[in-house]
Amino acid sequence: MSATQISAAGKVLKVLSAFGREHSSQTLSEIAQRTGLALSTTHRVVTELAGWGVLERGEDGAWHVGLRLWEIASGCPRTQILRDVALPFMQDLYEVTHENIQLAVREGTELVFVERIAGHRSVELLTSVGTRFPVASTGMGRVLLAHAPREIQEEVLDSPLRSWTPHTVVDPKALRTQLDRIRREQVFVSDRQLSASTVAVAAPVRIGRRGPVSAALGIVFTAQGASRARALREPLLRAAHGISDELARRTHTTA
Amino acid sequence: MSATQISAAGKVLKVLSAFGREHSSQTLSEIAQRTGLALSTTHRVVTELAGWGVLERGEDGAWHVGLRLWEIASGCPRTQILRDVALPFMQDLYEVTHENIQLAVREGTELVFVERIAGHRSVELLTSVGTRFPVASTGMGRVLLAHAPREIQEEVLDSPLRSWTPHTVVDPKALRTQLDRIRREQVFVSDRQLSASTVAVAAPVRIGRRGPVSAALGIVFTAQGASRARALREPLLRAAHGISDELARRTHTTA
Repeated sequence: MSATQISAAGKVLKVLSAFGREHSSQTLSEIAQRTGLALSTTHRVVTELAGWGVLERGEDGAWHVGLRLWEIASGCPRTQILRDVALPFMQDLYEVTHENIQLAVREGTELVFVERIAGHRSVELLTSVGTRFPVASTGMGRVLLAHAPREIQEEVLDSPLRSWTPHTVVDPKALRTQLDRIRREQVFVSDRQLSASTVAVAAPVRIGRRGPVSAALGIVFTAQGASRARALREPLLRAAHGISDELARRTHTTA
Repeated sequence: MSATQISAAGKVLKVLSAFGREHSSQTLSEIAQRTGLALSTTHRVVTELAGWGVLERGEDGAWHVGLRLWEIASGCPRTQILRDVALPFMQDLYEVTHENIQLAVREGTELVFVERIAGHRSVELLTSVGTRFPVASTGMGRVLLAHAPREIQEEVLDSPLRSWTPHTVVDPKALRTQLDRIRREQVFVSDRQLSASTVAVAAPVRIGRRGPVSAALGIVFTAQGASRARALREPLLRAAHGISDELARRTHTTA
């Protein structure tokens, strides 16, 4: 479909989709390039979006997502309900560990980080809230993959797995065994799979203790402290169960 | 302008604007009602938005903001840079207090809460991330108002001030005196102004120590513990300064 055949609504959505955590600030010509729309069309759509406060222009002249769109999006139930319920439990974990505490959900064969708690002493991460990664690339993602529908698992196992570090498990057979173990053991220790400098422990968050897996909770810390993984198992599981119980309570209440 | 004269892009934006933290889940007819669009038009726009993952349909048949829009919006610099910089300092404050730690920005004569940390023991609040309040209604808002351009201050002082509790300062003259004091004393104690059960201490966050005020940082706790306000002054100011210094460093680096 050529750009001229796209509906006006489609053009708005194309321009919006050009933004995101990784492309948060763009000039008009960058937006045109990323959307494939003509510069004049891009200008018209951006101006209309700016009129609604959906896009804002920075002092450098580049465009970015406006506060108005952020407010609209803050009502996203998949992130917001999870976040509201999970945050106090994530705080508990943070106080015990002072490490990065993360929450992620699966979307197809990718995972999206929806919440992160970090302090001054927490190790710097490649991931951040609002970014997507292939589901197999992180410990939290593998927990989500282990509990994903079979067709999603097969899709991931049938595609080449990216080797992020020399330690990344890329053999589909080894990954399959790992997924089995994750289902059996609940907590998964992901040793330098995405970054050579970090280790993660991850556990599933369900709706109730036996309900569907709706998210993964993880603690990410420096690989030098890898021996801590065992000690973190219990507090992580306690937090994941706390969130799961509360999600069941809320789902029950609102149903 | 009648609904039939609205551009296609305008219809998309009208539908999006019907959502937000306070109207996060809506049926098709509720969206039509809130936007003033015909039901058939609403159906067409919602279907197009769903195709892009911008809206999603829940099990109850109602529509809500999709994960895709949340991801796009997570790139909003006004919330994201602030959040990334502020979070470790907010964590420090949380560990010292175990109370609600909030961050808000001003948008015209309103304030928008952009971040909140809360634990199991923190008092329940009327406010939440992504919600707007009149700037004069909360302690954090008054700090933002005290440092707002004169025309914003006059606009607020010229309008009737809502009395949320018997303690709310609604006399414009008294509020003007309060704003003077806020500018002089930096930290402001807001005693049961929005809710009869809560007290807040709030301080401005600047870009650098003497730069423009870009946000307000606040601690909100139960009014029964009002005597704590004095003791919280120092840690709050230390956190606000820490964020301000870091914002100046980042702004300088990226400029």
